[in-house]
Amino acid sequence: MIISMRPHATRQEIDHVCERIGEFGYKVHSIEGEERVVIGVVGMGDVTACLESLEATPGVERAMRISAPYKFVSREFKKERSAIQVNGLQIGGGEFIVIAGPCSVESEDQILQTAEAVAAAGARMLRGGAFKPRTSPYDFQGLELEGLKLLRKAKQATGLGIVTEIMSDRDVDMVAEYTDVMQVGARNMQNFALLKSLGACGRPVLLKRGMSSTIKELLMSAEYIVAHGNPNVILCERGIRTFETATRNTCDIAAVPVLNELTHLPVLLDPSHATGKRSLVPALARAAVAIGADGLVVEVHPCPEKAASDGAQSLTLESFAAMMRSLAPYLRLWKEARDSEVAPSAIAV
Amino acid sequence: MIISMRPHATRQEIDHVCERIGEFGYKVHSIEGEERVVIGVVGMGDVTACLESLEATPGVERAMRISAPYKFVSREFKKERSAIQVNGLQIGGGEFIVIAGPCSVESEDQILQTAEAVAAAGARMLRGGAFKPRTSPYDFQGLELEGLKLLRKAKQATGLGIVTEIMSDRDVDMVAEYTDVMQVGARNMQNFALLKSLGACGRPVLLKRGMSSTIKELLMSAEYIVAHGNPNVILCERGIRTFETATRNTCDIAAVPVLNELTHLPVLLDPSHATGKRSLVPALARAAVAIGADGLVVEVHPCPEKAASDGAQSLTLESFAAMMRSLAPYLRLWKEARDSEVAPSAIAV
Amino acid sequence: MIISMRPHATRQEIDHVCERIGEFGYKVHSIEGEERVVIGVVGMGDVTACLESLEATPGVERAMRISAPYKFVSREFKKERSAIQVNGLQIGGGEFIVIAGPCSVESEDQILQTAEAVAAAGARMLRGGAFKPRTSPYDFQGLELEGLKLLRKAKQATGLGIVTEIMSDRDVDMVAEYTDVMQVGARNMQNFALLKSLGACGRPVLLKRGMSSTIKELLMSAEYIVAHGNPNVILCERGIRTFETATRNTCDIAAVPVLNELTHLPVLLDPSHATGKRSLVPALARAAVAIGADGLVVEVHPCPEKAASDGAQSLTLESFAAMMRSLAPYLRLWKEARDSEVAPSAIAV
Amino acid sequence: MIISMRPHATRQEIDHVCERIGEFGYKVHSIEGEERVVIGVVGMGDVTACLESLEATPGVERAMRISAPYKFVSREFKKERSAIQVNGLQIGGGEFIVIAGPCSVESEDQILQTAEAVAAAGARMLRGGAFKPRTSPYDFQGLELEGLKLLRKAKQATGLGIVTEIMSDRDVDMVAEYTDVMQVGARNMQNFALLKSLGACGRPVLLKRGMSSTIKELLMSAEYIVAHGNPNVILCERGIRTFETATRNTCDIAAVPVLNELTHLPVLLDPSHATGKRSLVPALARAAVAIGADGLVVEVHPCPEKAASDGAQSLTLESFAAMMRSLAPYLRLWKEARDSEVAPSAIAV
Repeated sequence: MIISMRPHATRQEIDHVCERIGEFGYKVHSIEGEERVVIGVVGMGDVTACLESLEATPGVERAMRISAPYKFVSREFKKERSAIQVNGLQIGGGEFIVIAGPCSVESEDQILQTAEAVAAAGARMLRGGAFKPRTSPYDFQGLELEGLKLLRKAKQATGLGIVTEIMSDRDVDMVAEYTDVMQVGARNMQNFALLKSLGACGRPVLLKRGMSSTIKELLMSAEYIVAHGNPNVILCERGIRTFETATRNTCDIAAVPVLNELTHLPVLLDPSHATGKRSLVPALARAAVAIGADGLVVEVHPCPEKAASDGAQSLTLESFAAMMRSLAPYLRLWKEARDSEVAPSAIAV
Repeated sequence: MIISMRPHATRQEIDHVCERIGEFGYKVHSIEGEERVVIGVVGMGDVTACLESLEATPGVERAMRISAPYKFVSREFKKERSAIQVNGLQIGGGEFIVIAGPCSVESEDQILQTAEAVAAAGARMLRGGAFKPRTSPYDFQGLELEGLKLLRKAKQATGLGIVTEIMSDRDVDMVAEYTDVMQVGARNMQNFALLKSLGACGRPVLLKRGMSSTIKELLMSAEYIVAHGNPNVILCERGIRTFETATRNTCDIAAVPVLNELTHLPVLLDPSHATGKRSLVPALARAAVAIGADGLVVEVHPCPEKAASDGAQSLTLESFAAMMRSLAPYLRLWKEARDSEVAPSAIAV
Repeated sequence: MIISMRPHATRQEIDHVCERIGEFGYKVHSIEGEERVVIGVVGMGDVTACLESLEATPGVERAMRISAPYKFVSREFKKERSAIQVNGLQIGGGEFIVIAGPCSVESEDQILQTAEAVAAAGARMLRGGAFKPRTSPYDFQGLELEGLKLLRKAKQATGLGIVTEIMSDRDVDMVAEYTDVMQVGARNMQNFALLKSLGACGRPVLLKRGMSSTIKELLMSAEYIVAHGNPNVILCERGIRTFETATRNTCDIAAVPVLNELTHLPVLLDPSHATGKRSLVPALARAAVAIGADGLVVEVHPCPEKAASDGAQSLTLESFAAMMRSLAPYLRLWKEARDSEVAPSAIAV
Repeated sequence: MIISMRPHATRQEIDHVCERIGEFGYKVHSIEGEERVVIGVVGMGDVTACLESLEATPGVERAMRISAPYKFVSREFKKERSAIQVNGLQIGGGEFIVIAGPCSVESEDQILQTAEAVAAAGARMLRGGAFKPRTSPYDFQGLELEGLKLLRKAKQATGLGIVTEIMSDRDVDMVAEYTDVMQVGARNMQNFALLKSLGACGRPVLLKRGMSSTIKELLMSAEYIVAHGNPNVILCERGIRTFETATRNTCDIAAVPVLNELTHLPVLLDPSHATGKRSLVPALARAAVAIGADGLVVEVHPCPEKAASDGAQSLTLESFAAMMRSLAPYLRLWKEARDSEVAPSAIAV
């Protein structure tokens, strides 16, 4: 930590700050500059508590943390990429994983037809919502348990692993029974009660970035899950909220290499939510492959204009297949690049 | 709804759109412009479903909703201000309500001392967190049930009603037993499972605006609670996330008069979270009174530098009392303005 | 400055950084932490050049500036408020100054009628655009020289000083001939060629905050003008761009007390651009008075629906007069608060 | 245009709105809904003036433009991509153009060494700033005319065309004498005086997106230049300002396909400003190729830690060469995709 005092802080204020630092078990390195005193804080202890205390102490201008606030998810803690095992696949391993499916599970026909088509086109997992977070209480809220059962049928028919969203810590056991990966949606990225339950649950978690969350906050939410016992976390960039309205969100694609520098966890990209527009999805998918994401989450629907939600950003079965064909040469370059790296290790926290 | 077709949409596409509109039970008014066809949609039906379908339909450029997506919370639905009854007070009535207290309940001494001091200075309710949403899993998470019990003691000692945060739909019954107002924090504003539970619970809810939520989304979340059976919702502006870092958040103070135009629900302002800096709180509190908010939520701590959280933005007991004295002449102007309005009605949805 | 090295920086990298710091004439204080080395940099020199160099040097994680990047505009440099002399008035002195008028000067009738009405209602200066920054090349661009001449006529008729916008360093001499205050619009806040010219010109400058500029950047732009010879700078908060669309911009009202802590320069608030909606202007104006702004910039038009620009946010002559009457009791509280401060000093850099 | 009236607008208000529409030469299509009247406006006329007037008219809730506010730059106006001719190259044609060089021109050695190295590595144009927009008046402001002369030398030595920034309409003639492409920086994207001068000048313009400008505003600024006589405009995405601080800006990479849908003008991407971090540049460059940008603008410096500006985001000569090698297979895919399109036409407005 670095504590910067106000320019005219009194000697008494400075001494009091040093004393407080000592109470937290840290050592003090004081630097007397031309304008002000800056205090370096060294040692091991409760960084946040100390920082918050000092920020509230008279004479202090700013208290800055230098070390990262997360540990288990960091590259410092584990150098090699983590590959998360799911239904016989590795996410974050040597294969680029495409997860595809409708926004909502609507009917047996719809989900089976979609599952078969996306599997045929090269998707490796099926996504579909049984519990839907909707801005309006009057909109379709999902088929709930019935939807989970349909997802299981689709898995039995195609072998595709299942990704589905969980919205309450009350539903963890029920959802875990039916799915391979538990998805935490953008609006619940800081639902800490839910994160703790998923830590205890152990099943792999797909954690989507909150629409106004920083990359650091995303990593802190991942840390919650890992610190509560579950190392199997997959991150997903899905666009952030900005002033631009030409797209539904603004895809922060640079978050992919930034996360690759900071964490060993796999990083997916969701070009559907990031743009909100079907026509932009294939171009963004190509960029995701080129920039080195570990996979995609893509919305696909047999008849988007009859979708219960998110039709405008859903690919048709045909356009998904076309996109997968067009990605093929980029996936070959991806594979070459990945193979030339050191092999990922299985997670062991 | 208004549907704007692409400039070169074909006659077939236009006909298909009109047909789809008909399937949703609406009537069509087609306007042929120089460049494109625009279609007005009139009638009663499932607006969102129709809009989402049309956005996904070939030839459509944009599908726009004209009517507000919320109903019960709107001024259209109820013209007069709603006054929410809490522990013998009215929030949204003829009195400006100051809710004060520490970020976290930390000990019996701390909460009792604070409760007595803020009551003496003019606060009408006590706030204090027993369940704390913290970005880091390693930070203090609140005293939980023990904290709720201390809040009850503080109420018994001072008569102040209690506002405390709830973080999971699992805890609704427990928290409701101890508190007068259930607070939904910014990070949970779109935790729809929680909102539904609070709708069923019936106890007044203080709904804080999400840090990147629009005013419309805030109203939709309030609508969730009301539509699930609980009309007692109090809104709170607490700053939004922007690019500016000089303050912890950016206080969108104009949200107060905007909300007063759109909804009959009371609107509070939280100058502590809005700024993150103790020295800015009194100035912002004056502005909140002048702009016509219904009250304030303010963080106060007997010794901010020993606070378990948010010390930098907490007023001391003395500075809170000084602020309350300085607000007095503004509160007289507020009271005059409010008394000259039509009296608020008790809520009856 | 504080330089934080990467956790595994080599001894050679650390030595090289210390050497580079020495080349810039600074002294080094090295702190060896558990995880990394942090280097305090002390002395006088070219801070930015040194920071930029170190950020680009191998092994460096982050290079942070501790001291403020501005000097002349800071409260460190001058403790008392600066009062800018304009046409017999003091902006930033013991009077709250309301500047009112149309967005664009459109005709002699329009500007004279407005000037007389706003003067009668209590405005102390007249605003009006002769050069208009318009997003579209096809929109009305202002009467230019003809507009400046009409503003002069309005001054002769009413005695009101004139504020008008300047858009190019080429026009400085011409505009300076006709106006008392040169306004720099939000879009030109970082038009450094213009800022330098205004520094040389000497006439008071009303510097509006850029729509996505930080408070620090606003102060840096003010510093440009002062450093180039003109200490007469008046700042203006007019709303920033965020994700919220209920208002034209988001009024960052807390910028007023933040600026009052950081700078001695006067700070105005523009409730018209901050909201974009006439109905919200009076409430925001009250808040501006209560929070301690030095004045207002308000758009007023005799017939907003015939205005060449910004009609939706313009008050009518009648509504402006009504607003001024409603502000009167708040202005009395403002005056009491201001009079109890130490008197402002005339500027002397 | 679509005019949506308030729910309880009176018949008189509706009639007045229709009358006003008529005065602007438009025809009215009125739609009577359950809750309100919506008015469709059809015909040719001054859209902005009419919209602004109606927004300011009593009873109107919202006035919405349906047609795009730009014309010459739109895909409606010209279907095929425009290829801008520069120094024997085509930007927007069948070749992906990399523009590389230092942030600032600092010395003859520096610019010549850089020019030769980037040319050898495959760059097709040289960038370098002679006039530098700097946040602080105390930072290096560029070599100005001397810098322009050094750029000319570099062109003579390598044959590379020159891109350099222009900051004031006063300098147009001087800068045009020395450069092939006039760059408008992010801070000047809405410096309308400058845009008009560049319209008259005729030399190709590289227009960078403002850091908080929407895609629509970027196109409107391009329209300024074209409407004032210069069709040779090249657009550049360079990151926008958001709440995220892990990167200098947030690269809105989806702006590339969005712009490709809306305009025929070429679109470059600047991965250096978009990220602010050297280590992220190559990954983002790959994404830019994959998503279909027309080229890159990249900062390169022989010794970044001695750069006068932007060292942290500058590639070294070696790392630039390495990046170009790694891009090669992606550029082959780019070329295949581009060749399979209809050939671009030379611009002819």
